[in-house]
Amino acid sequence: MTVGIIGTGNVAWHLIRGFQTSPDIQISWVFGRKSGMDSFEGIPYYSSFEKIETQLVDLILVCVNDDSIQKVLTLLPKDVNVAYTSGTVDLKKLNFQQANCGVFYPLQTFTKGKHVELKNVPFLIEATNEDFALKLENLASQLSQKVLRMNSEQRKQLHIAAVFTNNFVNHLLYLSQSHLENHQIDQQLLQPLLEETVKKAIELGSYNAQSGPARRNDQQTIQMHEQELNGIPKEIYSLITTSILKTYSNDDV
Amino acid sequence: MTVGIIGTGNVAWHLIRGFQTSPDIQISWVFGRKSGMDSFEGIPYYSSFEKIETQLVDLILVCVNDDSIQKVLTLLPKDVNVAYTSGTVDLKKLNFQQANCGVFYPLQTFTKGKHVELKNVPFLIEATNEDFALKLENLASQLSQKVLRMNSEQRKQLHIAAVFTNNFVNHLLYLSQSHLENHQIDQQLLQPLLEETVKKAIELGSYNAQSGPARRNDQQTIQMHEQELNGIPKEIYSLITTSILKTYSNDDV
Repeated sequence: MTVGIIGTGNVAWHLIRGFQTSPDIQISWVFGRKSGMDSFEGIPYYSSFEKIETQLVDLILVCVNDDSIQKVLTLLPKDVNVAYTSGTVDLKKLNFQQANCGVFYPLQTFTKGKHVELKNVPFLIEATNEDFALKLENLASQLSQKVLRMNSEQRKQLHIAAVFTNNFVNHLLYLSQSHLENHQIDQQLLQPLLEETVKKAIELGSYNAQSGPARRNDQQTIQMHEQELNGIPKEIYSLITTSILKTYSNDDV
Repeated sequence: MTVGIIGTGNVAWHLIRGFQTSPDIQISWVFGRKSGMDSFEGIPYYSSFEKIETQLVDLILVCVNDDSIQKVLTLLPKDVNVAYTSGTVDLKKLNFQQANCGVFYPLQTFTKGKHVELKNVPFLIEATNEDFALKLENLASQLSQKVLRMNSEQRKQLHIAAVFTNNFVNHLLYLSQSHLENHQIDQQLLQPLLEETVKKAIELGSYNAQSGPARRNDQQTIQMHEQELNGIPKEIYSLITTSILKTYSNDDV
């Protein structure tokens, strides 16, 4: 199977690395807006859209920002097979002429240069027709052991949950680390706690794993903390505390 | 060294398990309010305070709720060595008659029955005098490779950071999992993302690891998400999003 890649961001970077390890997949070209890319040695790179041989590949994978997907689909010929990698863009709300159009969404946070084991990454597949969906599933199976069919509505909801699990969790870690930095405390002290937090949430479930002043409704500590949060937005502390209290309000503590 | 334990909660449970594996430490007794405890076979258990032999142990370790520490110190004789395990209670703000009083704080989230590798857990030590601090450090070193001296003010700030890293992160995971449950989506799909989130924050630092709609200032996705958050408090989404936007407002995105 031959694949053309549109985009040179984090998702493109990781998918290309993955495809390169698969003997059944050949990346025919990569298109990106920036000229002079040399990250993918041995793969032809184009920064001029007219030069890419869209019809000579079995699949064009569009790994661009959500806002640019519609534009790319419009630019591509009618008779290509095309899929995009977004978690949020709804296949049914796009306008495209291609008969074979689909979604090839890897549910993971990617950063260039940071290795990720693709075989554990869920790939969520959707397509305009069953044959093409099977083709995309087959391609995803070359990279991952977790390939699933999911429609745009479900994928959107999954993406919201992913924003909480990754983006928002990471930001709380940032606030926590900033607080330590402001008080000249070694940030590495929290690493075992962070690792255990995740292990515990997975093993016990996050509902049972909850602990801390809000879980115990320890108002004295909560109020003391709110007075000490110089730098950290107090509203975040208060809102999450309130949300925890509400979650367990019907439980014996 | 002989130790008496006051308290039968999560911290007591894990410290007792830890001490039991150390040949140099003998737990002489455990005191708890509930009668009929049989969790620690071979260790005398008392639920009547008058019966415990406070003077026959080298150290009494007070593993009770923050609110009860003052009360326990008042009940104990003047000539005992005593330490408590709280992250927040300030040693200088307590009233006690004991010459040797200190803090023996393991920075970790503990739940009975959920194994934790104590040797990686930071133990933070503080005491009324240097000799006793050294004694507590020596005891902690029997359990952990990370034993540090830290005063009450620093420990309090560290505890606030720990609330964000553990309590609040766990609650976001709960909100995320609830959202999936509400939409009949398999919660296990997010596990690789969660594991990678932590790895990435540790490896790249949380500032560099940040991704997502707020990081990209992708207002279209943010607004769409806010409309879809049935069940999850919208204010939490909005506040953390605003906080991420503010964090990176001076950066090129």
